[in-house]
Amino acid sequence: MTEYPPISEQLSADDLESARTEGRRKMDWADQHMPIMNALRDSFEADQVLEGERIAMAMHVEAKTAILVEVLADAGAEVAVTGCNPLSTHDDVSAALDTHERITSYAKRGVDDEEYYDAIHATLGLEPTITVDDGMDLVAAVHEDYPELIDGIVGGAEETTTGVHRLRAMDDDGALEYPVFAVNDTPMKRLFDNIHGTGESSLASIAMTTNLSWAGKNVVVAGFGYCGKGVARKASGQNANVIVTEVEPRRALEAHMEGYDVLPMAEAAEIGDVFITTTGNRDVIVEEHFEGMKDGVLLANAGHFDIEIDLEALVDLAVDTYEARDGVEAYELEDGRRLNVIAEGRLVNLAAPISLGHPVEVMDQSFGVQAACVREMVENGDEYGPGVHEVPDELDKEIAEIKLEAEGVEFDALTDTQREYMGSWDHGT
Amino acid sequence: MTEYPPISEQLSADDLESARTEGRRKMDWADQHMPIMNALRDSFEADQVLEGERIAMAMHVEAKTAILVEVLADAGAEVAVTGCNPLSTHDDVSAALDTHERITSYAKRGVDDEEYYDAIHATLGLEPTITVDDGMDLVAAVHEDYPELIDGIVGGAEETTTGVHRLRAMDDDGALEYPVFAVNDTPMKRLFDNIHGTGESSLASIAMTTNLSWAGKNVVVAGFGYCGKGVARKASGQNANVIVTEVEPRRALEAHMEGYDVLPMAEAAEIGDVFITTTGNRDVIVEEHFEGMKDGVLLANAGHFDIEIDLEALVDLAVDTYEARDGVEAYELEDGRRLNVIAEGRLVNLAAPISLGHPVEVMDQSFGVQAACVREMVENGDEYGPGVHEVPDELDKEIAEIKLEAEGVEFDALTDTQREYMGSWDHGT
Amino acid sequence: MTEYPPISEQLSADDLESARTEGRRKMDWADQHMPIMNALRDSFEADQVLEGERIAMAMHVEAKTAILVEVLADAGAEVAVTGCNPLSTHDDVSAALDTHERITSYAKRGVDDEEYYDAIHATLGLEPTITVDDGMDLVAAVHEDYPELIDGIVGGAEETTTGVHRLRAMDDDGALEYPVFAVNDTPMKRLFDNIHGTGESSLASIAMTTNLSWAGKNVVVAGFGYCGKGVARKASGQNANVIVTEVEPRRALEAHMEGYDVLPMAEAAEIGDVFITTTGNRDVIVEEHFEGMKDGVLLANAGHFDIEIDLEALVDLAVDTYEARDGVEAYELEDGRRLNVIAEGRLVNLAAPISLGHPVEVMDQSFGVQAACVREMVENGDEYGPGVHEVPDELDKEIAEIKLEAEGVEFDALTDTQREYMGSWDHGT
Amino acid sequence: MTEYPPISEQLSADDLESARTEGRRKMDWADQHMPIMNALRDSFEADQVLEGERIAMAMHVEAKTAILVEVLADAGAEVAVTGCNPLSTHDDVSAALDTHERITSYAKRGVDDEEYYDAIHATLGLEPTITVDDGMDLVAAVHEDYPELIDGIVGGAEETTTGVHRLRAMDDDGALEYPVFAVNDTPMKRLFDNIHGTGESSLASIAMTTNLSWAGKNVVVAGFGYCGKGVARKASGQNANVIVTEVEPRRALEAHMEGYDVLPMAEAAEIGDVFITTTGNRDVIVEEHFEGMKDGVLLANAGHFDIEIDLEALVDLAVDTYEARDGVEAYELEDGRRLNVIAEGRLVNLAAPISLGHPVEVMDQSFGVQAACVREMVENGDEYGPGVHEVPDELDKEIAEIKLEAEGVEFDALTDTQREYMGSWDHGT
Repeated sequence: MTEYPPISEQLSADDLESARTEGRRKMDWADQHMPIMNALRDSFEADQVLEGERIAMAMHVEAKTAILVEVLADAGAEVAVTGCNPLSTHDDVSAALDTHERITSYAKRGVDDEEYYDAIHATLGLEPTITVDDGMDLVAAVHEDYPELIDGIVGGAEETTTGVHRLRAMDDDGALEYPVFAVNDTPMKRLFDNIHGTGESSLASIAMTTNLSWAGKNVVVAGFGYCGKGVARKASGQNANVIVTEVEPRRALEAHMEGYDVLPMAEAAEIGDVFITTTGNRDVIVEEHFEGMKDGVLLANAGHFDIEIDLEALVDLAVDTYEARDGVEAYELEDGRRLNVIAEGRLVNLAAPISLGHPVEVMDQSFGVQAACVREMVENGDEYGPGVHEVPDELDKEIAEIKLEAEGVEFDALTDTQREYMGSWDHGT
Repeated sequence: MTEYPPISEQLSADDLESARTEGRRKMDWADQHMPIMNALRDSFEADQVLEGERIAMAMHVEAKTAILVEVLADAGAEVAVTGCNPLSTHDDVSAALDTHERITSYAKRGVDDEEYYDAIHATLGLEPTITVDDGMDLVAAVHEDYPELIDGIVGGAEETTTGVHRLRAMDDDGALEYPVFAVNDTPMKRLFDNIHGTGESSLASIAMTTNLSWAGKNVVVAGFGYCGKGVARKASGQNANVIVTEVEPRRALEAHMEGYDVLPMAEAAEIGDVFITTTGNRDVIVEEHFEGMKDGVLLANAGHFDIEIDLEALVDLAVDTYEARDGVEAYELEDGRRLNVIAEGRLVNLAAPISLGHPVEVMDQSFGVQAACVREMVENGDEYGPGVHEVPDELDKEIAEIKLEAEGVEFDALTDTQREYMGSWDHGT
Repeated sequence: MTEYPPISEQLSADDLESARTEGRRKMDWADQHMPIMNALRDSFEADQVLEGERIAMAMHVEAKTAILVEVLADAGAEVAVTGCNPLSTHDDVSAALDTHERITSYAKRGVDDEEYYDAIHATLGLEPTITVDDGMDLVAAVHEDYPELIDGIVGGAEETTTGVHRLRAMDDDGALEYPVFAVNDTPMKRLFDNIHGTGESSLASIAMTTNLSWAGKNVVVAGFGYCGKGVARKASGQNANVIVTEVEPRRALEAHMEGYDVLPMAEAAEIGDVFITTTGNRDVIVEEHFEGMKDGVLLANAGHFDIEIDLEALVDLAVDTYEARDGVEAYELEDGRRLNVIAEGRLVNLAAPISLGHPVEVMDQSFGVQAACVREMVENGDEYGPGVHEVPDELDKEIAEIKLEAEGVEFDALTDTQREYMGSWDHGT
Repeated sequence: MTEYPPISEQLSADDLESARTEGRRKMDWADQHMPIMNALRDSFEADQVLEGERIAMAMHVEAKTAILVEVLADAGAEVAVTGCNPLSTHDDVSAALDTHERITSYAKRGVDDEEYYDAIHATLGLEPTITVDDGMDLVAAVHEDYPELIDGIVGGAEETTTGVHRLRAMDDDGALEYPVFAVNDTPMKRLFDNIHGTGESSLASIAMTTNLSWAGKNVVVAGFGYCGKGVARKASGQNANVIVTEVEPRRALEAHMEGYDVLPMAEAAEIGDVFITTTGNRDVIVEEHFEGMKDGVLLANAGHFDIEIDLEALVDLAVDTYEARDGVEAYELEDGRRLNVIAEGRLVNLAAPISLGHPVEVMDQSFGVQAACVREMVENGDEYGPGVHEVPDELDKEIAEIKLEAEGVEFDALTDTQREYMGSWDHGT
């Protein structure tokens, strides 16, 4: 295993002290608005449900994720955590986490590629029984570099669409050797995290990074999956004129039937004011598109990887590039048009200078499912064979009930007559 | 088999003549706005893809469904059709259909229970090879009364949520003896038919039956499945204040997160101005709810069966009942409050006096899937064992593509690089 | 004065009897949902506030307007009423009104131009002290044909945008010789009647006349005044893709900033699926536009007069015309394209076969203001000189308060400190 | 006149240098997205339309306002500018402005009350011929402290609702001695600045300051004027459940008819998650309201002055207060509930730590009107007597046309026939 220092050894003593205080303050704020995690912490801690477990985590290390890390540690587990994106780590939160007696945090913002993977490997030094991923880095590292760990791992959980997509491909190849919950695929995750979380936070980040408005703008949303739907709906809710691009006919039709314009990117490129990619695929906006764009457009990515906007092609096209504003790189074309790329085409709600990741409450729900999945792996992991598994319906439902109770929302229960009716088929018109 | 006369023998010669003309005119209008059915008719007819098949159908017999019936007959099949709801048949359309050389229509509006089932049974006199249901009446009749037909049936298709629900229960009991496509469960059906179709047409029917407005009204939507979502969204789009009731915590939470009020029906009952049930379950609005309602409320049902509003209890509560308006029965309570029930609590967008069923284009999509399912059963029926089957993804996608092409909507295709990327998992951050 | 018979002398005895019953039933339904008119009736009747007045009215004679007519008569006035559009009269309501001891109704559906004006003149036989108009017909007739009546008239009220527009032009020419309240210009009227009333009822009428859907449709709204805003907003709320045409730059910009597409009609004509005119001006859709339209489009008018769609030009262009559906005339062009005109281009929410005019509650508010205006003319008419007058703010506010109380909506009152603050200017940052 | 140093004398040489560079970069970004100001700069500069004028300005000094200041100076005027809110000044922009040969900037962030007014007075040392206000500070100072300047002033312009309100009160008292344009009252200003600008930027500031979400939140909007409408609409567009409080019955009714809940603040206080005041009045949220609030609520103000939330009462109620997060002060009540006040109750879209004021494009429109007003005062100031004047319609329209042209939005023009029709009144039905 790589020798890689935890955050506490990477910061100076002074920086560390203030980072811990500031990180704690951020976590306290998140904690105040995470009723699900609070409820789970109470029950997990009381029963020490993860006692004896060792958990490796590669996540966006900021205040909200930190609460998940803490809840798992408070439940009795030892945890080693690092980032899943070089730009998304908050060092102060990383430092605050590292003070917990059962948590070691290796996450640091701005590390290079080598350091990034060293930190990933360092978490595996814990010889984990559980892996918790946001982009499949840990599962990949275990299978490629540390196959000897597989036997000791009861299971894993994966947060993102992209990660799950890659895990399924791996599973189809018969290459995935332990069970992993596709947290991404739960109704909870998709609806709240992708639609509300990605939608709201991406738009707020772009607005606050650029000081520009949505009203009357042509906003091109590439992809009409859950993230794309969220971005489209929230942009429309700010009075933007939304244009959707898609490759799947039913999604294209769905967008059309919701009243959005649906166009091929080549046509959308010429009328868009803002472009937001959410496809999870590569090369969504490429040279031919850049060539047709208007002066002053904004380009941002809300998909996991920074591969959707072909920045290499843009660099080649540009005669000049400069920082137009914090987090905004302007690419000036030969004829004077300026294309403004936000946060280097990385996940905009995490990587932009004014960005905070998903809203607290949304992550509360998502992490609630994560925590319940980890508990499930520990309690019933042997019931799941190697491969990608859907989150059991009951776990997902449990979290919804906890949330509704916390929000004071009451709802109906089926009566016996109704339950019986739902199960019968032998009654007439 | 029952001797039951087709519509042409139930109407007087004069009525029949004018009914046929009027029915044809209605069908021509529908046909003008059904580009998918037009495209399918062209290809089905050219290839006579259903030559030699015998199809029994129990559907809402009105102009749009009639186009499906015709397309199947034009494709070479013999068809016997009847209604799936005593109040939804348009006699003129039924008469016009019956003029087709390969179609016999038994559907007639206002038949009593006995006649209704006689007509169902009459269609089975055709000894069908295919059944097409909207509420499972044919499948039920075949299994209960004519089991000898089962061997000759290659398969069926079921249109509604409720029907599919009952078929699955039957399937779970091991009682379903031939394959049936759950047309209801396709993305196409759910999104367009349930959300847009049920949503728009239910609200328009209620508005035009009552001459009342949505703006500022408290509209209580019981159930947040696809139909409920549609009704809620469209009502909200008319500036109603929407209140959702649910029994499933995740749906309740989803409604809450979309910004709707979520309440138990007992509380919603006291503030609602309009109540629309969409649950597919029974006894959704019952005595205790009636007791708390305001004077002048409207009660309507958008679910398949007329079991959601407990009218028997309402009759018992009322001191007087009278027709307040065509299609509106007023139940006057002891203290003078009037509760207005629309269309006797039957499916409001079909049974109200001013109602036309789903919009043409929505049914075009839904029936496109139906037609493709019938073709699939004929071509590949032996690949499907007894039981409920999901519509193959490719059929559903085919219909979406036909529709987009007809609407002139272009969309992108995956490039080879993108396709490869989607299938790979071995690339890093 | 013209001798013109009231409705009771135009119907046969049998028809009259059943018409009166049916008209009364329609009025009872409206009355049940008009809390403002109920409250005003109580106070007006108790005080006989219109005792001795004679009121001539030219209005759309249907159930809701009938309640206004009744309330004025119950307040002690004698009333003569006729229609303001040959197609909008409900004969049964007209007959029911005519049974009131102080009401004479001349309104009859389907009269020709000569009869229409004869009826207008007949109401003036009452030698009115008040005129109540919906389109300025009475004011015009008085000034052009019966100037001798002017001295006896204390004032008038005008309901529509178009009527007010014409009255102001007349006023500017110095030709208006008695005071008229511009009921149309009140916040109440514009917001509720135009936006919610016209918006909701126009769309519901079109949907129920055609059985077509809004989702995914390109809906071209001509004009972005209050009616246009209402149609645009409600269509958008049904998932249509709304395109606005305008001639005023600020309205065009407002529509653009709300996220709508703004186009010249010549471009909109080529992509629209449904066209709804709301401008109050003539020749909004003309020959050059018809020529570019797609097959199967719908053309409807929501403005007061049937001058917005140039039907003469369309007749000239068409090689065939036929009734495609009740209330829908198809114009077939040389190349086979069919343009479908709804309700002959007349006010669609009144003239379509399936249409009910504005929703009851909306008219309740609008007529509340009308009734308060009539009372104001009687009580303080001498304070207003000849010309167009805005409705005094206090009347408008009174109606809002009555409505909120009826709906059970509570709101805050200014505290003394706040009231003082609002009136002061001498405090700092 | 007070001796008060410009920003260039308040910063150290080093700070000044880097401040100027950074301020210029911010201004360049704004300039790139202000097409109206660019068009006006071109024409104003070419004609030197403000040559010889002296302009005193009290505005929020940040990048966008700076472009207005520059355009006025480029048009030939000498300009002295200061802040209109102690917390809204960006020192770097102030420093960059001060480098212009005809601009002196006194604006500095964080000044105390005395310094604030000293700076106001310092701008008057220019002996202005024009005043440009955002909150009436300059008009007040001129009238109270420097009445001798009045003779030399041709006119003023006022940006805000609150300022205009106070000016009208002053005018009613006969105390306003030169003409001031109520820029706030133009359709352009109200629709774009208040609705879109305040709406979008307030919500984005709150979201990015707190990392909280809107979906499913009860958002209480105090006041349903233009700002309140904007906040309500945009919050609703983010899936919040919006509750409106009002004191004016017609506005309350309008909110109710749009589908919002309308409640007295005393009831709203108990269910709200976020409170945003937009009334322009004082004491909107007071002790009795704090007492009923839930744990963890957010309190923010989007009105001009920090008087809407009674912080003094909250300080008295609290047993502890601490900074929960940058820009968020937590007030802990005796029972442990925490009420979180954002930006000390000051104008949240300007005073929050993560805030940028109105979006650039919105201010482009608003400042376009301002610039046209200043030009109008210089060219035709003698046509306006002392008092508050509405912006001439033609100016407002001119700006809309410039904007539409810049956005590439085309719209229709009236034909001669249509123009004639609009002016006539003598045609029939």
